[in-house]
Amino acid sequence: MTDSGATSLLGLSEIADVGRDRIRGGYSRHVFDSADQMLREWFIERATRIGLDVERDRNGNLWAWWGTPGPNALVTGSHLDSVPGGGAFDGPLGVVSALDSIARLRAEGVQPTRPVAIVVFAEEEGSRFGVACLGSRLLSGAITAERALALTDADGITFADAARASSLRPEHMGLDSETLSRIGLFVELHVEQGRRLIDLDAPVGIASSILAHGRWRLSFTGQANHAGATPMRDRRDPVVAAAATVAAVPTLALDTADARATVGRMNIVPGGTNVIASRVDVWVDVRADEDHVTRELVDRIRSTARDWADRNGCAVTVTEESWTGRVDFDEEPRNRFVTRLGGAPVLPTGAGHDAGVLAGTVPTAMLFVRNPTGVSHAPEEWASRDDCEAGIDALVSLIGSEA
Amino acid sequence: MTDSGATSLLGLSEIADVGRDRIRGGYSRHVFDSADQMLREWFIERATRIGLDVERDRNGNLWAWWGTPGPNALVTGSHLDSVPGGGAFDGPLGVVSALDSIARLRAEGVQPTRPVAIVVFAEEEGSRFGVACLGSRLLSGAITAERALALTDADGITFADAARASSLRPEHMGLDSETLSRIGLFVELHVEQGRRLIDLDAPVGIASSILAHGRWRLSFTGQANHAGATPMRDRRDPVVAAAATVAAVPTLALDTADARATVGRMNIVPGGTNVIASRVDVWVDVRADEDHVTRELVDRIRSTARDWADRNGCAVTVTEESWTGRVDFDEEPRNRFVTRLGGAPVLPTGAGHDAGVLAGTVPTAMLFVRNPTGVSHAPEEWASRDDCEAGIDALVSLIGSEA
Repeated sequence: MTDSGATSLLGLSEIADVGRDRIRGGYSRHVFDSADQMLREWFIERATRIGLDVERDRNGNLWAWWGTPGPNALVTGSHLDSVPGGGAFDGPLGVVSALDSIARLRAEGVQPTRPVAIVVFAEEEGSRFGVACLGSRLLSGAITAERALALTDADGITFADAARASSLRPEHMGLDSETLSRIGLFVELHVEQGRRLIDLDAPVGIASSILAHGRWRLSFTGQANHAGATPMRDRRDPVVAAAATVAAVPTLALDTADARATVGRMNIVPGGTNVIASRVDVWVDVRADEDHVTRELVDRIRSTARDWADRNGCAVTVTEESWTGRVDFDEEPRNRFVTRLGGAPVLPTGAGHDAGVLAGTVPTAMLFVRNPTGVSHAPEEWASRDDCEAGIDALVSLIGSEA
Repeated sequence: MTDSGATSLLGLSEIADVGRDRIRGGYSRHVFDSADQMLREWFIERATRIGLDVERDRNGNLWAWWGTPGPNALVTGSHLDSVPGGGAFDGPLGVVSALDSIARLRAEGVQPTRPVAIVVFAEEEGSRFGVACLGSRLLSGAITAERALALTDADGITFADAARASSLRPEHMGLDSETLSRIGLFVELHVEQGRRLIDLDAPVGIASSILAHGRWRLSFTGQANHAGATPMRDRRDPVVAAAATVAAVPTLALDTADARATVGRMNIVPGGTNVIASRVDVWVDVRADEDHVTRELVDRIRSTARDWADRNGCAVTVTEESWTGRVDFDEEPRNRFVTRLGGAPVLPTGAGHDAGVLAGTVPTAMLFVRNPTGVSHAPEEWASRDDCEAGIDALVSLIGSEA
């Protein structure tokens, strides 16, 4: 954002230099890293400046309260972390829009009839510990503390140790019914990750559903050896088995209606140019319209992986790292919001969100702001100032009418 | 090595804890990293202790002299760096055997008639800067200083900066005719990387030739986007193009007599589980009996990569990162050594060595010590104490007769 002179959306300018990734482009902001800590400090300072009281829950999520924290709160917000090399809007737009909306309502002298809060969820992208929406999953009990605390990052640091280093107490983490019970309604505003609002010629839309989705790790193991001294027929090369599997994934996904399957991350061990590898980890992100369709596609990928492992004298194990069933957002408040926003379009999404995790537990809705590039999770992700302002207007209208 | 009580091969025990890789297993010792510096200090201390004078040449190679440095020297040695997760013998066995041989000859009161030196070449594996045998290539002019200094490691550090940080002067690096002109004969002892000495039932052999070999980087570029929100048909995913190419490599190599082609290293950018990548770098190690056969195989891999890039809406560039033509070691001193070692077997290898780089410039020979696992570039790499002793005996015999 270069036009930082205006009062609204100033937050995006303020954090524009935090966590820039000089190698990948875009931003790399991962839970509890230095960029994430700077963003948290920025949020606390920013929320405090507009008169909110900030607290951190025992799972590392931040809550900025307008009024006394308590039940039936109207909560809005999103996350500040990013994928590696991500865009400027995925996450921060929802947080900045929440701050600007509440600042505007307070400036207008609005007195809410219920508590209002802004939430910043931890590790939404799962970029460091592998499980997306970790903060909201822990809060709502969608993941056990035991499993979450044992997750490790690429350097082998456990989530427990990283949390402890950020002054959280691992023994207090997990399902937090008290915090959860305060949420009367959660509304997450997010940049659209797709092109539907472009096609609909609308700046703002309302979410109908999220594809069923999950992440699976395929670990191929073979025998490390010398790349020059080992004849082709004597090899048990897990890179070959993994590559053949990865190459087959798009065809398997295309054979499944509306499904998406993606490999964006692989780790070759030991990773030397002149070394036949001993092990390859491949992460597959699989999504489809229905839970069983998603799982059937994963089954086909698993069986393809086993076949290629067998043919290369390798073994493969498949581990489900995360799973979120299809989410259909509640018809109420959705229909109420459509009316309030003058007939805003309703659209599905393929992207997971903390709102999707919470939808099973509390009334939840999502607003999308048009993305003129249609690209997300990349530096090209974008939203125009006018569309961002339209998103804030929508959020102001909803908070004003609901609170 | 657990049997550190014996005097010979003590060096392997002394460095057994330097550069252990807790994640990959084995050793990761890369040029100018802390493990490599410790190994250099260990070598200087060890060589000095047996009465040799150590100097570093302007390309970072270490030379320990027995007698006044000068022309027609008999030089032995190898390297101390490793591949990531490599074994304990590849490199260090040649250095330790050289130290032990000279210590024994000195203890026996031998007075050499020509200068004798032990050399430790820098960055033999090319694990940090991508080009194998970088120290011997610079020394002999097989790579220009300009190209070498511009090489970068995974963190973007240039070889020039890394060398400068190790007190080398980049402006003085490159072809070093003075040092080169001192070498009358170079003999490198190395653990065998293969199974020929097992089949021949011999502890020690002599090298006949090295396969032509090189490294090529295939860089596939596409469009980063969201893994969940981007329909399969709208993608330009470089991971798919790269995987299909990698999966085809073994078939292409199997169609080429005695060829080997390996992918042991890939880098996906940005590398997020829920992110369609923007770029994938794939390193292919290709070797074959003849230069033109190797290059023809690379051409077929290049054309396969282009085909898969096209089919996925991606682009691909292919860069030759290193090349070494087929090496046939000189018949003399080889025949003389066979006789001296009582008819030791002569065998080819698929592995590159500093001896192979120098063979075009100075008289050169190699000794191989049997590897009972047949595995190299991996923790399973091994040589028995008896076979290592046989290697030292052979080296003592050759140095004693040649010097």
